[in-house]
Amino acid sequence: MKDPREVRLAIRSGKYRGNTAGLAPGRVQGNVCILPQEYAEDFRLFCERNPKPCPLLAVSKPGDPMLPALGQDIDIRTDVSGYRVFRDGRLAEEVADIRDRWRPDLVTFVLGCSFSFEQALMEDGLRLRYVDEGKNVPMFRTNVDTVPAGRFRGKLVVSMRPFKPAEAIRAIEITARYPRVHGSPVHIGRPDLIGISDLNKPWAGDASTVREDELPVFWACGITPQSVVLDAKPSFCITHTPGHMLVTDLENASLAEA
Amino acid sequence: MKDPREVRLAIRSGKYRGNTAGLAPGRVQGNVCILPQEYAEDFRLFCERNPKPCPLLAVSKPGDPMLPALGQDIDIRTDVSGYRVFRDGRLAEEVADIRDRWRPDLVTFVLGCSFSFEQALMEDGLRLRYVDEGKNVPMFRTNVDTVPAGRFRGKLVVSMRPFKPAEAIRAIEITARYPRVHGSPVHIGRPDLIGISDLNKPWAGDASTVREDELPVFWACGITPQSVVLDAKPSFCITHTPGHMLVTDLENASLAEA
Repeated sequence: MKDPREVRLAIRSGKYRGNTAGLAPGRVQGNVCILPQEYAEDFRLFCERNPKPCPLLAVSKPGDPMLPALGQDIDIRTDVSGYRVFRDGRLAEEVADIRDRWRPDLVTFVLGCSFSFEQALMEDGLRLRYVDEGKNVPMFRTNVDTVPAGRFRGKLVVSMRPFKPAEAIRAIEITARYPRVHGSPVHIGRPDLIGISDLNKPWAGDASTVREDELPVFWACGITPQSVVLDAKPSFCITHTPGHMLVTDLENASLAEA
Repeated sequence: MKDPREVRLAIRSGKYRGNTAGLAPGRVQGNVCILPQEYAEDFRLFCERNPKPCPLLAVSKPGDPMLPALGQDIDIRTDVSGYRVFRDGRLAEEVADIRDRWRPDLVTFVLGCSFSFEQALMEDGLRLRYVDEGKNVPMFRTNVDTVPAGRFRGKLVVSMRPFKPAEAIRAIEITARYPRVHGSPVHIGRPDLIGISDLNKPWAGDASTVREDELPVFWACGITPQSVVLDAKPSFCITHTPGHMLVTDLENASLAEA
């Protein structure tokens, strides 16, 4: 499916339930976090203070399931192919739509995701090891603190992609142009300096081979806000199921700065 | 001296003969290479093919000592505080002005210099180790070939500045905005991969301390074209004396891309 609206309608009608990698090529996909209004101000502040792990693409009005800034007719209650419902910070259920769980106090946050900058890297001729190896990107919890906001605080989670040094420099230059989808890396080389003791043992995802002439390059990861939100144990929270992102109408290219 | 024209007039009149570091703050200083016209086409091509070590700021008309693109009344025969005259690739003399050596077939090339991007780094709060240590920047001849053009060919020379990984990423982002003054680095970490066996033994300049939690970051160096030109043994060539740059009217900030 190439058209983002076609993807969302297939999901909304129950025809598609899979993950969204590779769907609607060139369109921005977003991480979803839905919180009651009592948490929304703190979480918005947390995102603003931590723009690399939490690049805010859109925030809904309380109780309003529509996200007009991200696309035509997006209804967050039906347009994601998998949802996780958390109560008091614990996974309560995994569901196909959230019309029955919707409440007038819910606020939807959509955050940028690395798919967008990865397209730009690949268009520049850079290869992503985890893609070549047919795996998931490796993710690590670091010893780096995020900037707290109200009840939200915790460690930064990063994703790692290995590159030869000159390629790493190009990858930094390219992703720096995409601040709304994590932007430039937060670290390069020397995983020990950010509390990563073994690159072969990721906290999530799969290990990627790092060759002898390569440096590991670390980007802030969109898993960070989920990790931080669940640590804060909000009474109620809904996220997308990992890999099942919100497909928006925005073009990846539209996120590039000059 | 703050005004670039004041600097040039002091040099032209013989009142100032020192190096130009720190003079006319905020203004672009340039590397100078003057060649007979028979070499000029090859050298221009060499610069165009190797924009990182040889970022061309201006090229004069043959025999014309003026450089109107770089500033009011610049006369390349008198406005540099030290010149080196080479014959057949060997240093023949070091002189204070070149009015007596001027020829109607000479073409002046002015190339960007790292002073411009270093100002941007320092304005962002990054510290330069060689400045803090009161030394010259360390320079290394690598095993990386430049792209040849006619009789000009040779190895890339780099300068090295150490940074903590997150600072190195910022330094890459900042210097990427200055392609006319060497731009982003060519290498990071792992000096051995570009043929540098010992960071404590630079080919020119002074060694900089690289701390345990830092990565060496390597930028293409403006010494590269001098090294390449002298290897080509042109019948005649004039350069500035190292550290005695041409002070132009251009603002460093004007070289930044959006």
